[in-house]
Amino acid sequence: MADDGIKALVFDVFGTVVDWRTSVAREAEECLSPKGYKLDWLSFADKWRGKYQPAMEKVRSGGRGFVRLDILHMENLREVLQDFAIEEMTEAELDFLNKAWHRLDPWPDSVAGLLRLKKKFIIGTMSNGNVALMVNMAKNGKLPWDVILGAEPAQTYKPEAKTYLTGVDWLNLKPSEVLMCAAHNADLLAAGAEGLKTAFIARPTEYGPNQQHDFEAEHHFDYITENMLDLADKLGC
Amino acid sequence: MADDGIKALVFDVFGTVVDWRTSVAREAEECLSPKGYKLDWLSFADKWRGKYQPAMEKVRSGGRGFVRLDILHMENLREVLQDFAIEEMTEAELDFLNKAWHRLDPWPDSVAGLLRLKKKFIIGTMSNGNVALMVNMAKNGKLPWDVILGAEPAQTYKPEAKTYLTGVDWLNLKPSEVLMCAAHNADLLAAGAEGLKTAFIARPTEYGPNQQHDFEAEHHFDYITENMLDLADKLGC
Repeated sequence: MADDGIKALVFDVFGTVVDWRTSVAREAEECLSPKGYKLDWLSFADKWRGKYQPAMEKVRSGGRGFVRLDILHMENLREVLQDFAIEEMTEAELDFLNKAWHRLDPWPDSVAGLLRLKKKFIIGTMSNGNVALMVNMAKNGKLPWDVILGAEPAQTYKPEAKTYLTGVDWLNLKPSEVLMCAAHNADLLAAGAEGLKTAFIARPTEYGPNQQHDFEAEHHFDYITENMLDLADKLGC
Repeated sequence: MADDGIKALVFDVFGTVVDWRTSVAREAEECLSPKGYKLDWLSFADKWRGKYQPAMEKVRSGGRGFVRLDILHMENLREVLQDFAIEEMTEAELDFLNKAWHRLDPWPDSVAGLLRLKKKFIIGTMSNGNVALMVNMAKNGKLPWDVILGAEPAQTYKPEAKTYLTGVDWLNLKPSEVLMCAAHNADLLAAGAEGLKTAFIARPTEYGPNQQHDFEAEHHFDYITENMLDLADKLGC
């Protein structure tokens, strides 16, 4: 399949490139079980993640100014800890646990696929995660990004058009020269509406047994793929 | 020597990491000599670069809004071509020649030094070059940046404090955790005034026989080094 004038690939990260659910569960267990807590750690991860979209929606709707995701994650963490009746945490422990999101593991195919894609294309993040989070995650997981784009550079959250278009502008490319890659139909629809090309990467286990959508591409996208290696195959890398 | 709490290294790029003068001369010759022009190509590079600071000063002084360096380079290129009485250029040829700055060669020690530094620290750009320029240059020259920071993210040019401080903020670090590395005393003085740590990297041939300053560190900086490998040595990498 031709690459059709594509110069850069930009990626959703949480769920598409990294497995946030089992990673956050592991990190929570490592932080909290030495303090005597016994929880359903995957449920803890799900509950924390469940507060993600509502928190960003307050920014997108104009209800509050832009704040980076690390701050939203911390606010949400305090709520989740309260929900689970966990109280004995120092500020340093809270900060370390909050940065679980900086230590998420890539899906097994992600690094190998990105290294192939990087030889032919610019590869960058197009995530709602902030710059420090993305940079630290890349160092931890050996994700070979050429550039960090997304919410913090644009000062707004996906799926606001400005998030995608600031990245396209900074790359000095046309939207049609940029391929948005994501495991989420809504993200790709929003990017496609701004003229970016679109690639679906299936991550049907992202939410474990709770997954309710995004099992497969539900719209016309330019590429529909099983994982990062399949995307590299289809782009001739 | 201890690294003293440093988490990230940010680099001036033109002159510090790449050799703009001989690279631009080569690119100009490759573009213009097939059209029959015989110039002093190093002089052409010097004249083009000579218009760099005055063009940015219009932005820094508030005389015009922020525009990325690719645009300033193009305006300056049109003037230099006029100075050399070069007229027969298509827009595509102009664009290609303007992107000479995307194809600058690293100094011989840069890539090897950065690869060593990257193992221990976050490494990023803190350049007045725009994001696309930095990303394309990195692809061409195999510069292994973790993150692109600098003028375009901050929407102003060094040595404005906001340029450095936006980068520090996006890394979610304290200024004292970031080491500004440059071959130019003025750049380091400005970064140091905002609390960043400072490393001088000597590039005494940057301007060829026309070099008039920056032969050596003229102030107290945290590290004074001969090149990127020496910096890696001094930081224990």
